[in-house]
Amino acid sequence: MTYQPPIDDIMLALRSAVGLDGLIADGTYAGLDADTVRAIIEEAGKFGAEVLDPLNWPGDRQGSKLSNGTVETPAGWKAAYRQFIESGWSALPCPEDYGGQGLPGVLSMAACEIWNATNMSFGLCPLLTQGAIDAIHADGSDELKAIYLPKMVSGEWTGTMNLTEPQAGSDLAAIRTKAVRKDDGTYRIFGTKIFITYGDHEMTDNIVHLVLARVEGAPSGTKGISLFVVPKKLVNADGTLGARNDVICAGLEHKLGIHASPTCVMKFGEGDGAIGFLVGQENRGLNTMFIMMNAARLAVGIQGVAIAERATQRAMAYAKDRRQGRTASSKPGEMGPIVEHADIRRTLLTMKSLTQAARAICLVTAREIDISHRAGNEAQRLSASNKAALLTPIAKAFSTDIGCEVASMGVQIHGGMGFVEETGAAQYYRDARILPIYEGTNGIQAIDLAIRKLPLEGGAVAKAFIAEIADTASAVKASNRPEFGRLGDRLVEAVAALGVATEFMGRCVKDNQDAALAGATPYLRLFGLAAGGHYLARAALNASRDQSDGAGPIALARFFAENLLVAAPGLAEAVTGGADAILDVDPHRLSA
Amino acid sequence: MTYQPPIDDIMLALRSAVGLDGLIADGTYAGLDADTVRAIIEEAGKFGAEVLDPLNWPGDRQGSKLSNGTVETPAGWKAAYRQFIESGWSALPCPEDYGGQGLPGVLSMAACEIWNATNMSFGLCPLLTQGAIDAIHADGSDELKAIYLPKMVSGEWTGTMNLTEPQAGSDLAAIRTKAVRKDDGTYRIFGTKIFITYGDHEMTDNIVHLVLARVEGAPSGTKGISLFVVPKKLVNADGTLGARNDVICAGLEHKLGIHASPTCVMKFGEGDGAIGFLVGQENRGLNTMFIMMNAARLAVGIQGVAIAERATQRAMAYAKDRRQGRTASSKPGEMGPIVEHADIRRTLLTMKSLTQAARAICLVTAREIDISHRAGNEAQRLSASNKAALLTPIAKAFSTDIGCEVASMGVQIHGGMGFVEETGAAQYYRDARILPIYEGTNGIQAIDLAIRKLPLEGGAVAKAFIAEIADTASAVKASNRPEFGRLGDRLVEAVAALGVATEFMGRCVKDNQDAALAGATPYLRLFGLAAGGHYLARAALNASRDQSDGAGPIALARFFAENLLVAAPGLAEAVTGGADAILDVDPHRLSA
Repeated sequence: MTYQPPIDDIMLALRSAVGLDGLIADGTYAGLDADTVRAIIEEAGKFGAEVLDPLNWPGDRQGSKLSNGTVETPAGWKAAYRQFIESGWSALPCPEDYGGQGLPGVLSMAACEIWNATNMSFGLCPLLTQGAIDAIHADGSDELKAIYLPKMVSGEWTGTMNLTEPQAGSDLAAIRTKAVRKDDGTYRIFGTKIFITYGDHEMTDNIVHLVLARVEGAPSGTKGISLFVVPKKLVNADGTLGARNDVICAGLEHKLGIHASPTCVMKFGEGDGAIGFLVGQENRGLNTMFIMMNAARLAVGIQGVAIAERATQRAMAYAKDRRQGRTASSKPGEMGPIVEHADIRRTLLTMKSLTQAARAICLVTAREIDISHRAGNEAQRLSASNKAALLTPIAKAFSTDIGCEVASMGVQIHGGMGFVEETGAAQYYRDARILPIYEGTNGIQAIDLAIRKLPLEGGAVAKAFIAEIADTASAVKASNRPEFGRLGDRLVEAVAALGVATEFMGRCVKDNQDAALAGATPYLRLFGLAAGGHYLARAALNASRDQSDGAGPIALARFFAENLLVAAPGLAEAVTGGADAILDVDPHRLSA
Repeated sequence: MTYQPPIDDIMLALRSAVGLDGLIADGTYAGLDADTVRAIIEEAGKFGAEVLDPLNWPGDRQGSKLSNGTVETPAGWKAAYRQFIESGWSALPCPEDYGGQGLPGVLSMAACEIWNATNMSFGLCPLLTQGAIDAIHADGSDELKAIYLPKMVSGEWTGTMNLTEPQAGSDLAAIRTKAVRKDDGTYRIFGTKIFITYGDHEMTDNIVHLVLARVEGAPSGTKGISLFVVPKKLVNADGTLGARNDVICAGLEHKLGIHASPTCVMKFGEGDGAIGFLVGQENRGLNTMFIMMNAARLAVGIQGVAIAERATQRAMAYAKDRRQGRTASSKPGEMGPIVEHADIRRTLLTMKSLTQAARAICLVTAREIDISHRAGNEAQRLSASNKAALLTPIAKAFSTDIGCEVASMGVQIHGGMGFVEETGAAQYYRDARILPIYEGTNGIQAIDLAIRKLPLEGGAVAKAFIAEIADTASAVKASNRPEFGRLGDRLVEAVAALGVATEFMGRCVKDNQDAALAGATPYLRLFGLAAGGHYLARAALNASRDQSDGAGPIALARFFAENLLVAAPGLAEAVTGGADAILDVDPHRLSA
């Protein structure tokens, strides 16, 4: 079925959760208005639906291929990429100094959702390029910026992130790729990187690799890692392309999903060494990475939203079309559409409400990143930066977990047809599965939330966010609107559960870190559910009474609260009472 | 990694949950002893590990192929099948009158777990054959039994179940395949069936199709469906094979998983009609199907256990081997095995405890089916039959849901390598996804539990089972063993939640059926968790104190209770308070 850009749902999240109108009014998003925002998202939606979505399924079947040392993307990819950059989409959030449009991150994330909903394998290319742009822009020299940024912003060149090595996945301290300093200030890079998305392809003339490596003599561990720009082709002084650099794609992974996105093994320095240019200072490479990590993790969270949205759309269409069994509307002897069965409706409402909850969390996180760059005073910027830091692991992990769950429900709605590849639901299920893994596994996100984010400002950042949810809960209770059902009660319960669990985690981080680590995953889920319930409730509060049927904001918030948020107290119990059962087990006596 | 048959875990479930020793002593399993049971399972484990497991991954890559109208299974399949039947495995639970070994269903299910853990695509063939044997044995004429059963029991011929048609999936009332009565008492079958597992292959000389069809002039709906035996090759009076029947495999599905298992489109009667032989009476075909449905659904539940077990084993091995980050045991500057990280251990314990809980539920269901056939008096047989009926939808749906969840966790444990097909974890994730769909979707199972099983004996069957769990909870509380942690409290809470939800569902079935349908899925999950907690707790009660470390029965029961069973009250809230939010939504105004 055709992709329908979820313009209304995105605008709803932007207005009710993000507070778009206020941010336009107070100048944070100066020069924009809500109509322009909507128009841009509509244009993105059109591009996604017309150009990217039709390539998604054939791209999966065909996959990217390595032949004669070059990666060939599937048929149509190169032309679509050309159209993508000619329409200016690559430049959307980029710095205006280098040809970008300088639009806010919230808008960029809304567009990013659309690219990834229609074609996650394609969407990864601009997503990674954006990360590389951010890194160079943050810490690159003026010369590096002048040479690389204009071409990357325009999309003429793409970018990659080269972090992982076989022995260094979650633990980057183990990186071994070597950088040798030369007298001319450049470096020679030697090493193998794996899982490099779009490490090679033929869509552009050049590819700009950002590579983590260790300069000879650098300290061991994370404090000896530097970041380099390593172009596929060297750039002459006049900006034209010169010789091929000493970097090759040595192989492609055979993956469960995102078949069209080439996942490369990259070899640097099989000959004299790949020429690399230092970004920032030696041994400070991870710091640059951390600057851009919030944005990259958020983008992956948005991919979770995207795949959930696409899976929900397909399931919804099928459920309205497919007839099985007697239903309320079916005539005697005839079958009704399965959407009329209560159990199917439960699944569809679960899919839709989880998607909208995750979308709101991600867009709010984007807003905080925006404010952290744009606010007029330092205190506001710092406060927003902290809030973005708190929400980022939730945006990444909660959204990608539900991305997989929703994609699985999408298969289920289709019955036997869901297991048949041609139906298309199975592709989302396969594609989605990478999301909880890359850009920091969801376990790493949970630990980041517990160990590094909760203690921010002595716990005040988390406390302030929980107080926000409590305010929403109070407002729902005070509204006394019968169509809200038990939304208020459930939100009050969830806030209480989150409060207890947060206090417990805060104590553990200080004096029993193992217990905090053991409880991190259910804690993150609890936080995500509560935050999601909060934003859905805000949308419900803003909705008028005549939006109370169908599956509008009120129905959705109520369903979420009465059916999914009810998990909150149990998750808090797992956090506060589940650790000993984990820590008491001797891991080496564990057998399957 | 090599498959390790989980002999101890299976024996633990057989002794602590099934009560094997008592059933041997009271004569239900006359002629068996615990050592023989163990020896048989060990032999099955050896066969699975040595013959079937090595074919699983190459079989997935190669898949079954249709060429010149015949299905070719992957390399090695035919030889393995030959070895399987020569070792007598196909005859294990079959009636002794027809060459079977007449062993109990619990034992057959334990072996079935092993076939499907090592090679689900292979395991499906005997699984379906068993269903066909059961159907013919239950209602076939003496002549049909004499012609077909000996060859099917020996495995010389395989069997298939032909139910689904494009318009008739969950709703068999819509079946259109036509049967024309002939003067000689045979029928001519015309129609197309889809999703027919092993509908064709070259491993045996003949295939016995069991086909649901509608005799001309039969009533519409489910009361006009008859069951036929339609052999691929007709059988001469002397038992030799005669002409090819008018049935062909017209295509194979391209599926997400179980690639080696051919899923066929079967065309009956493209010419003069496929010759079919009525099983039982006209228009009573679904009754025969229902007789065997408990066993078939249970077998699919066991497939869920199987894939969960295999995924857990692979993840456990990887987690002990893979080193990332500092851990309790790592020396300065070195990395420790990830199994030592608390969050990884949480995932592994979740995988292992869900697997063992589902295994116990399935094996207990098998026991009840055994007793329903074997008990000395009618009252015992009826009581066991009712209990099997109650537990079957839980065994099927809970086990297959957790099969998918555990397979997904297995991918996650492997990090980026989990997304690479060669690692093997992704295959389990793909293969598992069919299980919640076939043999009645898990939504259908939940509805079956709510609408047909809870009302059995006026609700007394469910009530008695809940009382069993309550007894276990009391025994745990009374034991006062500190190593149990909060196991007793959690079990008491779960029983209370299940009691409240059951009472609510019981009321709804009578006067608000829509609410019962809306709450069926969380109700089934709640029931599965409580039953699983109950059986794990029984194993813990039987365990000695020195089994209280590692991940023995006590550690596992405690982990499950403190980390997973805590979901029970929230699920009960969703059941009792979540229906209105679903039923108030107008399904036709639902949009993605």
